[in-house]
Amino acid sequence: MIFLQNDYSLGAHPKVLQALVDTNLENTLPYGEDQYCAAAADRIRDMIKRPDAAVHFLTGGTQTNQTALAAFLQRPHYSVISADTGHICVHETGAIEATGHKINHVASEDGKLTPEGIEGVMFLHEDEHWVSPKGIYISNSTETGLIYSRTELLALREACDKHGLFMYLDGARLAMALTSKANMEAADGPVDFEFLGQVCDAFYIGGTKCGALFGEALVILNDSLKSEMRPLIKQRGGMIAKGRLLGVQFDTLLADNLYLDLGANANRMARLLADGIRAKAAADPSKGYEFIAPFETNMIFILVPKEMVPQLAEKVAFETYPVVTDTHQGIRLVTSWATTEEEVEAFLALL
Amino acid sequence: MIFLQNDYSLGAHPKVLQALVDTNLENTLPYGEDQYCAAAADRIRDMIKRPDAAVHFLTGGTQTNQTALAAFLQRPHYSVISADTGHICVHETGAIEATGHKINHVASEDGKLTPEGIEGVMFLHEDEHWVSPKGIYISNSTETGLIYSRTELLALREACDKHGLFMYLDGARLAMALTSKANMEAADGPVDFEFLGQVCDAFYIGGTKCGALFGEALVILNDSLKSEMRPLIKQRGGMIAKGRLLGVQFDTLLADNLYLDLGANANRMARLLADGIRAKAAADPSKGYEFIAPFETNMIFILVPKEMVPQLAEKVAFETYPVVTDTHQGIRLVTSWATTEEEVEAFLALL
Amino acid sequence: MIFLQNDYSLGAHPKVLQALVDTNLENTLPYGEDQYCAAAADRIRDMIKRPDAAVHFLTGGTQTNQTALAAFLQRPHYSVISADTGHICVHETGAIEATGHKINHVASEDGKLTPEGIEGVMFLHEDEHWVSPKGIYISNSTETGLIYSRTELLALREACDKHGLFMYLDGARLAMALTSKANMEAADGPVDFEFLGQVCDAFYIGGTKCGALFGEALVILNDSLKSEMRPLIKQRGGMIAKGRLLGVQFDTLLADNLYLDLGANANRMARLLADGIRAKAAADPSKGYEFIAPFETNMIFILVPKEMVPQLAEKVAFETYPVVTDTHQGIRLVTSWATTEEEVEAFLALL
Amino acid sequence: MIFLQNDYSLGAHPKVLQALVDTNLENTLPYGEDQYCAAAADRIRDMIKRPDAAVHFLTGGTQTNQTALAAFLQRPHYSVISADTGHICVHETGAIEATGHKINHVASEDGKLTPEGIEGVMFLHEDEHWVSPKGIYISNSTETGLIYSRTELLALREACDKHGLFMYLDGARLAMALTSKANMEAADGPVDFEFLGQVCDAFYIGGTKCGALFGEALVILNDSLKSEMRPLIKQRGGMIAKGRLLGVQFDTLLADNLYLDLGANANRMARLLADGIRAKAAADPSKGYEFIAPFETNMIFILVPKEMVPQLAEKVAFETYPVVTDTHQGIRLVTSWATTEEEVEAFLALL
Repeated sequence: MIFLQNDYSLGAHPKVLQALVDTNLENTLPYGEDQYCAAAADRIRDMIKRPDAAVHFLTGGTQTNQTALAAFLQRPHYSVISADTGHICVHETGAIEATGHKINHVASEDGKLTPEGIEGVMFLHEDEHWVSPKGIYISNSTETGLIYSRTELLALREACDKHGLFMYLDGARLAMALTSKANMEAADGPVDFEFLGQVCDAFYIGGTKCGALFGEALVILNDSLKSEMRPLIKQRGGMIAKGRLLGVQFDTLLADNLYLDLGANANRMARLLADGIRAKAAADPSKGYEFIAPFETNMIFILVPKEMVPQLAEKVAFETYPVVTDTHQGIRLVTSWATTEEEVEAFLALL
Repeated sequence: MIFLQNDYSLGAHPKVLQALVDTNLENTLPYGEDQYCAAAADRIRDMIKRPDAAVHFLTGGTQTNQTALAAFLQRPHYSVISADTGHICVHETGAIEATGHKINHVASEDGKLTPEGIEGVMFLHEDEHWVSPKGIYISNSTETGLIYSRTELLALREACDKHGLFMYLDGARLAMALTSKANMEAADGPVDFEFLGQVCDAFYIGGTKCGALFGEALVILNDSLKSEMRPLIKQRGGMIAKGRLLGVQFDTLLADNLYLDLGANANRMARLLADGIRAKAAADPSKGYEFIAPFETNMIFILVPKEMVPQLAEKVAFETYPVVTDTHQGIRLVTSWATTEEEVEAFLALL
Repeated sequence: MIFLQNDYSLGAHPKVLQALVDTNLENTLPYGEDQYCAAAADRIRDMIKRPDAAVHFLTGGTQTNQTALAAFLQRPHYSVISADTGHICVHETGAIEATGHKINHVASEDGKLTPEGIEGVMFLHEDEHWVSPKGIYISNSTETGLIYSRTELLALREACDKHGLFMYLDGARLAMALTSKANMEAADGPVDFEFLGQVCDAFYIGGTKCGALFGEALVILNDSLKSEMRPLIKQRGGMIAKGRLLGVQFDTLLADNLYLDLGANANRMARLLADGIRAKAAADPSKGYEFIAPFETNMIFILVPKEMVPQLAEKVAFETYPVVTDTHQGIRLVTSWATTEEEVEAFLALL
Repeated sequence: MIFLQNDYSLGAHPKVLQALVDTNLENTLPYGEDQYCAAAADRIRDMIKRPDAAVHFLTGGTQTNQTALAAFLQRPHYSVISADTGHICVHETGAIEATGHKINHVASEDGKLTPEGIEGVMFLHEDEHWVSPKGIYISNSTETGLIYSRTELLALREACDKHGLFMYLDGARLAMALTSKANMEAADGPVDFEFLGQVCDAFYIGGTKCGALFGEALVILNDSLKSEMRPLIKQRGGMIAKGRLLGVQFDTLLADNLYLDLGANANRMARLLADGIRAKAAADPSKGYEFIAPFETNMIFILVPKEMVPQLAEKVAFETYPVVTDTHQGIRLVTSWATTEEEVEAFLALL
């Protein structure tokens, strides 16, 4: 089976797993107060050049978004602005609202939030009959695999500063965002860890989709958002007893550039795949292979003939996508740190 | 001062107030278990021809919407669908989300929800990573003064049945909706209390904007939504000790057609106003008076020359509306059960 | 029927009702921003000699406690300490917990919270695995009709200051507490409005049980607790459109000492009742009339022979109390601002 | 360093870790729908002889308690009864209340809940002004290391049935409870998995403290409590992408009696320790070694001379306990699946 279904079905990169094996029989302080969490947090502070950053390790993306946003929205009527395609809007079973906070949804063509979108919300929210937007949520890469440029992030930063909003970035696939070709070759310079440490009030470095067994590293830069995080993590069920499991994993992932190397592999495999599909499409236009959405990281959305879907499904694990024409069906292909050239070639041979 | 600012700044219709005076020194059972609440509830059951309806009296619209919807959405991940202009979306300070439930916002041109809007939401919400929509919220009249026709409500009913959704109608201005000319003369027949008793799973009869000092009557028709309302009303702070204050008011309002008469007056005054404005606009096109939104009940949205706004404000209480052109400013005029022909004429004389 | 069932079943004192009649057809600003609310708030600031106090008017006690405490407990893991007999612990259907906050219950013999009770809670709550107590809730008079003395309140104040806790006082029956004989004649001086303005961080002046149709006046003295109250009141459904109804009532109640006069009447009638019962008990010890609880304000708890309960119930409205012996049943008698000497004498004649 | 500080600071039993290594590079369905979770769930259903049981795997104890209880308490005013020493009352940062539900605390001498405690709560909770208790929470072993007998659990079951309460058992240390000498030799027969499958409505099998890296297995037996668990787990941030990590661990732990063997080792080491301490106490009464609490599983609470505490702390990791006399300090010693006889002997040598 060629696996192009998602980037979170394998276990961990072997180095990460080995580190867990190596430390398994150590007795450390529980609840994330161990030396491994401390070391991993230090690595992050170094990488982003923000020695003042607060770092917390949590077990998953929804948990991190929920815990962080509910903590940052410090009064019950504070809300967060998101593109309506944002993971928190659509794929977290209402986890933010379950904490009592509204999300201000902004219609978005490509899944990105813009300063105009922020202005539209702020224009309306004028008095105590409305919620009070206090922050924005963005994902990099987005849920459809696109990336924000430096220029775009700076423009959002400006809009946030204008309106007193915090800027929170969901980095579930940050390894892929930072190592995407489009980012590395951007005319305005690449977004990197150091830039994120400047432009964001908080963000998380995703582990689950980038080589860890599980785990995300929440990084808080704005002092006014740092308080009371440990009790809030505990209260929401996110503080695991053996917190060092997270520290050990991130300490390994972030050493020797492993984290970014893993993202780069996912992107490279996706590019190979995309190039191959384009070649097939050009070679045989009758097939009608077509890209549904722009391609920038490790997710590819294409139309394939409907009759091909069950054939592919025999040999490939993938998901369909809710775009359908009379003759064609959308499918989503996702590569990961573990995808190999052989898998890509095997898939292309099937087209 | 000519008062066209809103329909909730006066006290109560004199008959309603007199009933409170007449019953003032009676000792009744507290918390809404008195004979006046029982009598008013019976009146409602008669009016809607649903002897099985459960009726509860609450003190205001936001409280009613919050208490009812949070009660009807019986698990934390259940959500309610609303036009994005719905009162619960924009003007209740996130009261629904504060109970932990998401609102699925549907973009709406005219403030109404449609079966297509419902389908769009249901299409996406497929598995446990999404919230589960379980009901719809509509207002009649809407926040911009429009009404739903029988045909429209039946179409929504059908969509709700198809998807297992309850249909909840916010009747803050129900007196105006039911007595609007457009409703009374509708080709498909008027929406009336009896029809609401058939088509809705629950709705509320608004008192605050229709002649009461305060108070709304929540009517629940669907058995599966009736349970546990009293503890939930109590828990949300909506159960007043002297519950009979609400029973006495509704018992008076709903006797002798008073409720609908009051709505009819508001509509009639608005029509006089609208007719007069149209005449002024025709007589002097250079003024550029223009209706911003369709007119069906007791709210009128028009453009007036910008320089006229401060002049009007000296003699008229009204609100501006966020529609602006280079030369004109939107204003909102609202009539009520107490608006008089003299006031309307005085306003028209100012144009 | 002699009415000794509670102090919240009548309507309003006639002067209060007349004020509502007099102002009924005025158009004022909605949502509590009118001149009557402003005037009533000014009266309160004068009475308590705290020109800096923030004042908000809400419709009932549970709503006030819920809104105030949830606002004051500014992070989700902040908790409030209360005697386990406190109204918020037992008789508000979990309204505080429904906002997400824990109440730290302290076992209490007489319904009062003590510095020792506070110490016991604070001793345990040491780290992020525990909630963080940030305030105390007390009622004056308590749910069993007892009052706090100046000395007791100062001792609680000291304990609060030591531990960084706010002190919130539920004054549902404040009129009775302040005018009770025990308070007026206390060796350490009476608790009065001015003293409350000094010793509390926040408290509410109860209207519902003290002569109003409905309504409570929340008074916030501590600057750090004042922020964001209006959106939070709105979000919890407590902001009524015709907010002036509350202002008008309190402006009347607080004029010419009416508020305290009404409390004094309730207390005086209760004392007459208690004296009469004591006389009956002395005159005929075989009846076994006995006071279950100390008596200080307008509530009397006594044991009567079981067979007498149904007889009394034919002519008197009262509640039984969950204290039972082989031969006797506890009953609760409550007087109000409207109780008359005739009623008291009629009751005593039945014993 | 002799480690007697807790039972959750090591990693996993080597077999469990090896299973994670062996399955690391498999692509399985995400979110707990993989074959390992299915297999582990089947093992549990077999062990408890309840083929109808629903099984869900979560990452930690607080998360499991919060998710399960909030799901089982299906309306906002439903509450759960617990001994006031229960983990949910004291050591989960208000996680239950954060979901909006009250815990009815029952004072408890030894940390256990009794039918009398349940009766006391139910007696008071009579109408809609009170929360509605719908379940009980107990821990086996308790937070102080005690176990419930069959007879005790059956008595609780009876009280639950009488009042329509569900019975939920927190099995964070279930391996120790089931293998404790007191349980194995109980006159009324040992509590075992099969018995739990009969007596409980739901319980969880703790992994974190019993040989897993992390993870707890929630077992739901009562049909009425099974619905909607997956969206609720997702909403509370408890559904990890690589859900098989939990399935693999439990599938290993529950094979070949490993789970109970690990519990048995912890208990055996604790018994050795307790026996040794008793011997020391008898040999040198001047030391004043004394058991503070009964000993039944893997936790020992003793008084040691105050001056000994810093000396011990140089060579032993342990926690102090808040029981202090003039001369002695309470300490807590905890053994685990990994504690060795050498460690126990080394500790005893220090006394």
